[in-house]
Amino acid sequence: MKSTPPTAPHDPFGWIAEHTAVRAAAGLHRELRPRPAQSPLLDLAGNDYLGLSRHPEVTQAGADACLTWGAGATGSRLVTGSTALHAELEAEIADFTGFEAALVLASGYAANLAAVTALTAQGTLLVSDAANHASLIDGCRLSRARTEVVPHADPDAVRKALAGHTGRAVVVSDAVFSVDGDAAPLAELAAAARDSGAALLVDDAHGLGVLGDGGRGALHAAGLAGAPDVVCTATLSKSLGAQGGVVLGPAAVIDHLVNAARTFIFDTGLAPAAAGAALGALRLLRREPDRPARALAAARTFHRLLTAAGLDAAPPDACVVSVRAPSPSAAVTWAADCRSAGLSVGCFRPPSVPDGISRLRLTANATLTDEQIATSASLLISTAPPLATTTA
Amino acid sequence: MKSTPPTAPHDPFGWIAEHTAVRAAAGLHRELRPRPAQSPLLDLAGNDYLGLSRHPEVTQAGADACLTWGAGATGSRLVTGSTALHAELEAEIADFTGFEAALVLASGYAANLAAVTALTAQGTLLVSDAANHASLIDGCRLSRARTEVVPHADPDAVRKALAGHTGRAVVVSDAVFSVDGDAAPLAELAAAARDSGAALLVDDAHGLGVLGDGGRGALHAAGLAGAPDVVCTATLSKSLGAQGGVVLGPAAVIDHLVNAARTFIFDTGLAPAAAGAALGALRLLRREPDRPARALAAARTFHRLLTAAGLDAAPPDACVVSVRAPSPSAAVTWAADCRSAGLSVGCFRPPSVPDGISRLRLTANATLTDEQIATSASLLISTAPPLATTTA
Ligand SMILES: Cc1ncc(COP(=O)(O)O)c(C=O)c1O
Ligand SMILES: Cc1ncc(COP(=O)(O)O)c(C=O)c1O
Repeated sequence: MKSTPPTAPHDPFGWIAEHTAVRAAAGLHRELRPRPAQSPLLDLAGNDYLGLSRHPEVTQAGADACLTWGAGATGSRLVTGSTALHAELEAEIADFTGFEAALVLASGYAANLAAVTALTAQGTLLVSDAANHASLIDGCRLSRARTEVVPHADPDAVRKALAGHTGRAVVVSDAVFSVDGDAAPLAELAAAARDSGAALLVDDAHGLGVLGDGGRGALHAAGLAGAPDVVCTATLSKSLGAQGGVVLGPAAVIDHLVNAARTFIFDTGLAPAAAGAALGALRLLRREPDRPARALAAARTFHRLLTAAGLDAAPPDACVVSVRAPSPSAAVTWAADCRSAGLSVGCFRPPSVPDGISRLRLTANATLTDEQIATSASLLISTAPPLATTTA
Repeated sequence: MKSTPPTAPHDPFGWIAEHTAVRAAAGLHRELRPRPAQSPLLDLAGNDYLGLSRHPEVTQAGADACLTWGAGATGSRLVTGSTALHAELEAEIADFTGFEAALVLASGYAANLAAVTALTAQGTLLVSDAANHASLIDGCRLSRARTEVVPHADPDAVRKALAGHTGRAVVVSDAVFSVDGDAAPLAELAAAARDSGAALLVDDAHGLGVLGDGGRGALHAAGLAGAPDVVCTATLSKSLGAQGGVVLGPAAVIDHLVNAARTFIFDTGLAPAAAGAALGALRLLRREPDRPARALAAARTFHRLLTAAGLDAAPPDACVVSVRAPSPSAAVTWAADCRSAGLSVGCFRPPSVPDGISRLRLTANATLTDEQIATSASLLISTAPPLATTTA
């Protein structure tokens, strides 16, 4: 069948050129910048909050898992893709975080799609924070539920949205919002949900490993871990330094996901290397329960130094320090200046920011020295664009 | 904030018990069955078509990548998650398959969501085969396009659906359908799409590595690789034995995905171990271009032996051999009997089958010996339920 020539009478992707031009004109074009194995840059951009992704114990656990279990899971978790390693990771992460059961998926994104879609049905009301992560939003879009988006971090708005609804309802929120790094009012959200019989679904991607006793997460900190009406999702790709996602909750909920969640059923299981590395990271975290406090302290120091110099940074509730920039192009220049001076920082512009405000997104981690923090804060201050203290 | 007690006045997950009971009564309850590192079972259930997932060269490449690059990508591909290893894999897989450019994502599921959503907009018409994979269906649901589902493998229906539509349109199909293992009529689909200026998006999850010259995939076999109006998605988790997904297409399309695809932008990059293992598998495949033919021959032999004994198996176009069972419970018993005798086969029941017909799903792979094929075919025949030759 080599007959059809690779030419088309009409270019069905012609519209892309215009999109590209519009993005370029707005300073919003993105390009990938592959990094070398040993980057000369100081990393304030990644989400490796505990510095475990490159920790020899964690990488060795990942490498050993790959050699012992194979490079891939070879199938859906329901067919050949469940190994004893997955089961071990699920048991240990449930035990650590204080939930009855856990289910490991190929990514945190898949975990959020799984939890939101499988726990809702036609007629369910989803009450979703306006600043929720893209994967929760996509979960709401994929579900057959009606979604009501409520103002950010506003338990009263959640109560209002739930009032009068009689069927099933789920309140959905990030625990720590990924762009600004602020924490959700979990106790108040749980109370609002309970008062109307709704479930609470919390994405603790940025809280697991850094918040709560020894890094047990935001729900543990709020006394909500293991509650029968609470489900938690998280990723294995940030504090645990690997890849993958997890849903934590009552055993009946986890069993239901096994039977109903499309991104679990129709997806290849997480690769053994990632499961092994995450398990290695979890065990290391148990042995070194002070790592989370070091990461959190670094974030608070960054915030103190930057705001003292007049920069507009939100107080960090976890390890993300978000600094506002006056425009997308100013943010790009600022980040590029930092990079030239040896510092890698995140640059968030539309459409990656919910409110259209461009930011530098800094992440603190447990391995930063006091000197690295001081030097990089100075650099951020000296390279700041004019007007960086106002929000445009 | 340890004050809120972990109790709820009302169980918002109470409805799950009823769902579980209904599933159990219908013989549709699923449980995970974790396997040991060295399973005593012969595997006719996984999608490791070339037997590369446990190949020492591939697992070593994965282990080395984990040690060299870290256990995780540490961030979005747009921030810290792009390594030179990802770029190398993208260049080599594009070159191998004959496409201009490639983009690697965390899973094949994510690749399908990315391609379908980013290549469509409000007003786009999506023409989607009724038997498409769940991830393509979810992509259609997430997109803002209008989706017209057309009968399975029916280019005339595709033409009819496109007729009269004047705006952008994308025809979406699996290359090899995951349940029955039949191939899509790609040349006819491409012609139908071209005649009305539509793009063609093909998921080659089950074709890459087994179809086409040396495993270059179904689009290469059809002379469509590298065409300006064709985009291909695939997974790194089947023939390449690892984890991850890839989108292949014109460079402008790939660049657009980098800027617009939510499951690319808002997801952590693929773990280095998986990228390294997939790259190792790709290189091995180039050196051993006869592996695909061995896997395909094994599938054809299974089909011949099973149908000769009166079983109802669809002719395999790739490595999947699907055998119909008279009921979900008969399929479960059949698969369990095989398992007791040392053979692992897939058991597909609703809701994992589009048409409600339960099946055993066998997969052939390049490592099977003639004796293993003969013995396992005999076992399948001797354990077949009464009426397995009719379709209930
Ligand atoms: C809040 C939040 N949830 C979910 C995810 C998705 O997790 P993963 O990258 O493991 O898919 C991310 C980031 O990637 C995130 O920031
Ligand atoms: C046809 C098809 N497309 C996509 C996928 C998803 O790929 P992945 O498992 O890498 O997410 C699968 C199976 O898992 C599949 O069978």
